Amino acid sequence: MPIVTIDLLEGRTVQQKRELAEKITAIISEVAEVKPEVVWIKINEMKKENFSTGGTLKIDV
Amino acid sequence: MPIVTIDLLEGRTVQQKRELAEKITAIISEVAEVKPEVVWIKINEMKKENFSTGGTLKIDV
Amino acid sequence: MPIVTIDLLEGRTVQQKRELAEKITAIISEVAEVKPEVVWIKINEMKKENFSTGGTLKIDV
Amino acid sequence: MPIVTIDLLEGRTVQQKRELAEKITAIISEVAEVKPEVVWIKINEMKKENFSTGGTLKIDV
Amino acid sequence: MPIVTIDLLEGRTVQQKRELAEKITAIISEVAEVKPEVVWIKINEMKKENFSTGGTLKIDV
Amino acid sequence: MPIVTIDLLEGRTVQQKRELAEKITAIISEVAEVKPEVVWIKINEMKKENFSTGGTLKIDV
Repeated sequence: MPIVTIDLLEGRTVQQKRELAEKITAIISEVAEVKPEVVWIKINEMKKENFSTGGTLKIDV
Repeated sequence: MPIVTIDLLEGRTVQQKRELAEKITAIISEVAEVKPEVVWIKINEMKKENFSTGGTLKIDV
Repeated sequence: MPIVTIDLLEGRTVQQKRELAEKITAIISEVAEVKPEVVWIKINEMKKENFSTGGTLKIDV
Repeated sequence: MPIVTIDLLEGRTVQQKRELAEKITAIISEVAEVKPEVVWIKINEMKKENFSTGGTLKIDV
Repeated sequence: MPIVTIDLLEGRTVQQKRELAEKITAIISEVAEVKPEVVWIKINEMKKENFSTGGTLKIDV
Repeated sequence: MPIVTIDLLEGRTVQQKRELAEKITAIISEVAEVKPEVVWIKINEMKKENFSTGGTLKIDV
């Protein structure tokens, strides 16, 4: 019953999300040996002012 | 000091959230034997294009 | 498809976890109007040295 | 490679977020002995109707 | 800068985890158009007594 | 009511965790303008076989 959470900056299209969901589900099903139905994926989009690396918000890069 | 996170599809009313907060706090307080004040609950609403089961986004179902 | 995560200090019995799972699933199913089967619950137990409130680790209280 | 997630009620300015990112990165880098570049911070803003303590949503306080 | 969290029941080998990390990084890099270096993956293993679907702990299935 | 989650590789001492808790609570209290008591911090330690950057588990670096 894998639950996958993907945190990423906002701006991906629905088509990109669709592709992520499809392909990641296929891999997890295959490698972890579970049925695709029990792979749940959440996509969490972040605004650039809400993500920082090295102490700098992405809005300031 | 339990912290409860509820991820669910968007679309619930404030009244439904109020009821979830009240009832889940009561149960956790009783079963885990902690005071209600230290039960914190976060509700995380997801758009249908950001949640997938079996490789299919909820927007495509 | 609600996913519930419960972070709490370690030390609960399996019976307490069983009760949490049963009762919280029933409430979410009823209030959020979803089938019990699609309510998934993760319990995340923390050691006292890994949780702090007010700047003090629970191991030091 | 520390990943820090900060859940808090919405309403902080970009300047406050900038300061949080800067200062928390500096502390983690120093205390955990890692380079600042590998400290990633996510800020997750919550609406008042999505956060509860003691069974009461913040919107009702 | 995608961060992927995979919650799953314990019991996978290091080789399975290695394969998950490699393949999921490749897909996210390709679909989300980011360099592989900025794809970070956390695997969170759960004990069967800490995961429930439909109100039943996995330890009781 | 900020909740801070720190995911990092295992191996820090209790003294390092104590210092993280103290200093991060002080900063968040100051910058986000909340009382220290309502700053809760969770530390989530990961094994090297459960964390990957660039597709490579830390156990393989």
